[in-house]
Amino acid sequence: MAPSTSGRSRSRLSTAERREQLLRIGARLFAERPYDDVWIEQVADIAEVSRGLLYHYFPTKRDFVTEVVKAEGERLLAMTRTDPTLPVADQLIAGLDAYLRYVEANKDGYRALHAGTSIAVDDVREILDRNFAEQGRRILAVLCPDSEPPETLRVTVRGWLAFVVAVCLDWLKYQRLTRDQTRDLCAKALLDIVAASPDVQIDL
Amino acid sequence: MAPSTSGRSRSRLSTAERREQLLRIGARLFAERPYDDVWIEQVADIAEVSRGLLYHYFPTKRDFVTEVVKAEGERLLAMTRTDPTLPVADQLIAGLDAYLRYVEANKDGYRALHAGTSIAVDDVREILDRNFAEQGRRILAVLCPDSEPPETLRVTVRGWLAFVVAVCLDWLKYQRLTRDQTRDLCAKALLDIVAASPDVQIDL
Repeated sequence: MAPSTSGRSRSRLSTAERREQLLRIGARLFAERPYDDVWIEQVADIAEVSRGLLYHYFPTKRDFVTEVVKAEGERLLAMTRTDPTLPVADQLIAGLDAYLRYVEANKDGYRALHAGTSIAVDDVREILDRNFAEQGRRILAVLCPDSEPPETLRVTVRGWLAFVVAVCLDWLKYQRLTRDQTRDLCAKALLDIVAASPDVQIDL
Repeated sequence: MAPSTSGRSRSRLSTAERREQLLRIGARLFAERPYDDVWIEQVADIAEVSRGLLYHYFPTKRDFVTEVVKAEGERLLAMTRTDPTLPVADQLIAGLDAYLRYVEANKDGYRALHAGTSIAVDDVREILDRNFAEQGRRILAVLCPDSEPPETLRVTVRGWLAFVVAVCLDWLKYQRLTRDQTRDLCAKALLDIVAASPDVQIDL
């Protein structure tokens, strides 16, 4: 069989690399335009692969968007991982710093995910909920390293994660605060609340 | 013309009363079942009015759901209005108390509005945003009665309103805290944050 024009790029990537490439293209497209204006065939064209290959990885658009959100969530979780040997406040600042840099670099995708409606299908909401839960567990592990965190603290951290999302959406919308001001405002809010909590075991 | 079986109930209500009746029926139906399972013709049947009359008030389902959300939002804003002569912490507790009682009495509707996807059409999101803005203005007017609130405080209050929604959804889901514990947790979070803010002009 004669090599197609896209044969070169198709043969260069492993299965995992190809999958990741397609998901990154998807993240970019979903960030740039409304859900309904993205055709997954465009993804195949940009990646220079056949549509058949794309459907092999992702049978439907819904599968594709779900996997894009999952991959971006994992990327964000990896980016916001912090050094557990650092003081709590420093870990918080570092984690938020990475988070806000991601938000700034992925404005439209972040807005679509958290304030948009069209991609808010149930599968996507479940992934978001799992990511919130994982972020919450990380924070609680830092605040209460030696015991099961009390329910009030777990709920407080869950509330604070929503606080951060709302503050980020507001920041993107009005752009009146700098990224560092936004980061410090979010860090301060959590520290103020937990500093006043009898449940927190560590020095802040 | 002979009176129809629904003539009695139709003739008893004024236009405003009829409209409110239809919206309250809608609020109940949308709270009880998924958006797609509500037909506005059911609303007409329950109210014992003709479908033509219902369409006269609300030409489409989308118009209807938008007006239901608007009316419920206004009801909630009215219920959470507090006595400005009370100390700030007391106003906060009273406002949250009314809010959480509403949430408890309207569990399914609250969840559908804030965590559901199907009714999250753009019009509804705009109404929610306006309600958040109004709630925020009220709180800022209490915290900074004599001057324009600084941007950091405005953003903090916006974040806290999202904190409250996330905490309420978590409360409805897990039911591990009582209503009073949930209320106190939300109040404490805002007071802890603003107590540490140099921008707040009043005693808490």
